[in-house]
Amino acid sequence: MTFESSETLFAWPIRVYYEDTDAQGLVYFANYFKFMERARTEWIRSMGIDQGDLLKNERRCFVVVDTSASFLIPAKFNDEIVATARMIEHTRATFLIEQNIYWQDVKGELLCKGLTKAAYIDADSQRPLRLPKALFKEN
Amino acid sequence: MTFESSETLFAWPIRVYYEDTDAQGLVYFANYFKFMERARTEWIRSMGIDQGDLLKNERRCFVVVDTSASFLIPAKFNDEIVATARMIEHTRATFLIEQNIYWQDVKGELLCKGLTKAAYIDADSQRPLRLPKALFKEN
Amino acid sequence: MTFESSETLFAWPIRVYYEDTDAQGLVYFANYFKFMERARTEWIRSMGIDQGDLLKNERRCFVVVDTSASFLIPAKFNDEIVATARMIEHTRATFLIEQNIYWQDVKGELLCKGLTKAAYIDADSQRPLRLPKALFKEN
Amino acid sequence: MTFESSETLFAWPIRVYYEDTDAQGLVYFANYFKFMERARTEWIRSMGIDQGDLLKNERRCFVVVDTSASFLIPAKFNDEIVATARMIEHTRATFLIEQNIYWQDVKGELLCKGLTKAAYIDADSQRPLRLPKALFKEN
Repeated sequence: MTFESSETLFAWPIRVYYEDTDAQGLVYFANYFKFMERARTEWIRSMGIDQGDLLKNERRCFVVVDTSASFLIPAKFNDEIVATARMIEHTRATFLIEQNIYWQDVKGELLCKGLTKAAYIDADSQRPLRLPKALFKEN
Repeated sequence: MTFESSETLFAWPIRVYYEDTDAQGLVYFANYFKFMERARTEWIRSMGIDQGDLLKNERRCFVVVDTSASFLIPAKFNDEIVATARMIEHTRATFLIEQNIYWQDVKGELLCKGLTKAAYIDADSQRPLRLPKALFKEN
Repeated sequence: MTFESSETLFAWPIRVYYEDTDAQGLVYFANYFKFMERARTEWIRSMGIDQGDLLKNERRCFVVVDTSASFLIPAKFNDEIVATARMIEHTRATFLIEQNIYWQDVKGELLCKGLTKAAYIDADSQRPLRLPKALFKEN
Repeated sequence: MTFESSETLFAWPIRVYYEDTDAQGLVYFANYFKFMERARTEWIRSMGIDQGDLLKNERRCFVVVDTSASFLIPAKFNDEIVATARMIEHTRATFLIEQNIYWQDVKGELLCKGLTKAAYIDADSQRPLRLPKALFKEN
């Protein structure tokens, strides 16, 4: 079952360091997924959810179930880019997040189009849990 | 335009080190894409293509255009896993590779289902090049 | 030959994400070196040096020659930490930077004590170059 | 207190992939520490110690306390290198390991000289434990 999407777009600025690049001179493709997770993490934090406390005290966490990305224009060393997160649908235990990466800001060139399906689980049993209500609060 | 698939399956063993894991105790999701690239790289090497020479001497390289993965069962620290590569279709300049990850060997549990579309390009201009013939040789 | 140290301390805040941690539940030791480089990069930027332009237009870059770290207290997932950079000595082509990592801010607990010796080189020949004057300007 | 060194040299071959390199075209400096840990892990495995079981069943693990590296000659994309581990001294709970990296094999050019001091600890309390006897067995 899928509910209506929240249209709120969350954007998180990222600087490209040497650690993010490879010998082709550009951002290493797998590292865009790290950038997406940083945006996702900060978006979840902006909802008032502290994932550090969740993991330590309640042994609950979010995990990526499916993810995909299309790489349109490569980012380079020292570029300023922005990674976004916007929930576009969800079920009881999972949510689908659109995660694009732009050059400089969300009006800049689109560098990478991503989608991430994440689940909320018990960290020990790996069993799915109902998503926290805070993810759906009015902003 | 898409041609017929080669059915040859290439498999590359990988050991999970601490560098590959995260604080949830399992392999960090983005690192499965590194594992897939190791298998892809070794599969290309097995075709007689030396990507080091290609990049250095001819300024040609393969880049990932699209990639996706579904994470079914998490690999853990110290696990022995195997990442595979099998070309399933191609155009003049791009190829689509099925890349699964299994526990221990290709008959083991399927941990991750991946797909990678790569292109062959000029490293300086980023323009597409015709795929090397060696990718299609009979094995 | 070693000159007098600049006493200016540069501090750069860093958030610990899952990508930075390992299955022991803490920051993976090698990733502290990435944190140090982020602080070093931002300190160099604060001097008015654009390493992206340097590499692209002049084929000059900074490289790490020696580095060491002592890990005193581990940082955890979701922690806010701060990485510092302070030049403590230099020669014509190299400089030694003290790079500590603290919990929350430079008055917080000392988590990691680091030292980095970097050189300024020609990216193609790998030959040493005289350090840019901007590194020694009055702030 | 320091005991006599074992002179046994353990060597582990490593292939340099794109994931290991950066936009300077060479191995990213912090990744040499990952290579050293792979060699250390395989050396410990060769002693009959299964770190996966240790962490999961006994909640015991090895952690890096201090580490340093001197970078002499850079490794490049696609290079075959070898990382070594040799215990050179130890106390009750810690051991010092010499970890060099060579081009192709231990008779090849020395690329990186490293030292790692590791401790054996309780993963939950972070308290030091007496080193496992297996680390000192005759080979």
